[in-house]
Amino acid sequence: MASYEGNPVAKNIKSAPTWSDESANLLKVAPGFVLGTVDAGSTPGFAGNKADGQAALAAGAAELSALQEQLFANSRAGDNRKVLLILQGMDTSGKGGIVRHVVGAVDPQGVSHHAFKAPTEAELRHDFLWRIRKEVPTAGLIGVFDRSHYEDVLIGRVKQLAPPEEIEQRYGQIREFEEELFDDNTTVIKVMLHISAPEQKARLMERLERPDKYWKYNPGDIDERMLWPGYQAAYQTALERTSTAFAPWYVVPANRKWFARLAVQQLLLKALRDMVLTWPAADFDVLAERARLAAS
Amino acid sequence: MASYEGNPVAKNIKSAPTWSDESANLLKVAPGFVLGTVDAGSTPGFAGNKADGQAALAAGAAELSALQEQLFANSRAGDNRKVLLILQGMDTSGKGGIVRHVVGAVDPQGVSHHAFKAPTEAELRHDFLWRIRKEVPTAGLIGVFDRSHYEDVLIGRVKQLAPPEEIEQRYGQIREFEEELFDDNTTVIKVMLHISAPEQKARLMERLERPDKYWKYNPGDIDERMLWPGYQAAYQTALERTSTAFAPWYVVPANRKWFARLAVQQLLLKALRDMVLTWPAADFDVLAERARLAAS
Repeated sequence: MASYEGNPVAKNIKSAPTWSDESANLLKVAPGFVLGTVDAGSTPGFAGNKADGQAALAAGAAELSALQEQLFANSRAGDNRKVLLILQGMDTSGKGGIVRHVVGAVDPQGVSHHAFKAPTEAELRHDFLWRIRKEVPTAGLIGVFDRSHYEDVLIGRVKQLAPPEEIEQRYGQIREFEEELFDDNTTVIKVMLHISAPEQKARLMERLERPDKYWKYNPGDIDERMLWPGYQAAYQTALERTSTAFAPWYVVPANRKWFARLAVQQLLLKALRDMVLTWPAADFDVLAERARLAAS
Repeated sequence: MASYEGNPVAKNIKSAPTWSDESANLLKVAPGFVLGTVDAGSTPGFAGNKADGQAALAAGAAELSALQEQLFANSRAGDNRKVLLILQGMDTSGKGGIVRHVVGAVDPQGVSHHAFKAPTEAELRHDFLWRIRKEVPTAGLIGVFDRSHYEDVLIGRVKQLAPPEEIEQRYGQIREFEEELFDDNTTVIKVMLHISAPEQKARLMERLERPDKYWKYNPGDIDERMLWPGYQAAYQTALERTSTAFAPWYVVPANRKWFARLAVQQLLLKALRDMVLTWPAADFDVLAERARLAAS
């Protein structure tokens, strides 16, 4: 599939009022994808409005929680499967909102969340994947990375934090790393929350106008904003080179927060539904245990 | 204050339909406390019924989430405060339910959860507090321990996993450790979820009767159940020796899950309210930043 904006077949898929597997495919990055053609304000694959989207999100929350519990239950019986959601996006693109409003529906015991900041000196002494490997989810969990190893080919590329030839090598290292995760029964879902530059401006302004939002603002955010075209180019390259069958990228238009949240929830739900989870059988003699308990 | 069951003053405190600070005091372990006198089916400090309790829990969820966000915001501005909720209790006492239904209201980014299992061989090569120290929450977070270093004076004592003199030393080591946490701006809330032996039997039987609960059942649970009096005695000793001004124990009657959840939520809320949190001031020139942003 080519860029979903440029693909006439994709355009002709009738948007459903509810989410469908076709909706997810509309967001997937495939050969020919061009980030610059994606409308950050669009809602591909969902014909409803904000209220419809919020209702669909609320409706999916219980299922997401229930499926994760089943995944966890199976992990106790030796099932090694887990999910890793990788969230990337420009400042204010809504990564934190996804964690709060989508992942927040899941039992805290079932979530492994990590926000990656600028690497520490200790971390910089290791390969860029070293600190990432330490945080991958274990069996039964939904792992969430708020930023990730992709920073090393995004800010790393834009600000030339490493020699160009080293950055070039990283795409292949990332593909290999993610194939390892796949082979280790990890469903990797990579999401770029795609906002427009004017939308970012409005969101940053809100942080400068509301005292309860000041703490989210950093003057460095504007420095990064000045590098917008460079970041978009770095994203384009990263998306092209690392969207694989075993760890595809999804570009989620995110100017409308309600849509981005619904889309990511549905990607998680699809990953879990595709596992065809059932409750694990008892690994003990149920009748004998009932008798033991009754006698205790 | 003596045991709240045996204390006529405590008994005369009029139970409020809503939770109050007095309610929390009714649960606090103070000199003279006797675990054996606590009715696991009681609802001290709350006069309402199950529906009232569930409504109060729902009403508190948004405040808990909002206060944690303020705590987190302040941590970004250098405030080192955090909360650590330690959950202990016999099997099926509802520790997991507290995490799901109370802590689940908080943004996953604001929670640091760890369930301590039987120590690994690597962990056993270290001091018993070594693995605990690695999991204490950082600034701005609500940490949750599902089981904890107290296992080392509970199962450790009941099953004689260490020499008696070593176990004796641990109470003092725990007090010192928790005072360190207090000095490091950690509000430590220790909760024993107190169920009765018949209630445990009913809950274990449910796990043996529902295929969607089999995974929570372990035949070893009955072996532990057989040691009930020993565990109650070990709890009594631990509560006596480690309930301090800087890290008090609360014994929460937990035969009624709705009450236990409400009580723990209210203990967390009180800890956060007592911090008198406000939004941190901007550490940048707001007007200058607005101008920079407008020009970007």
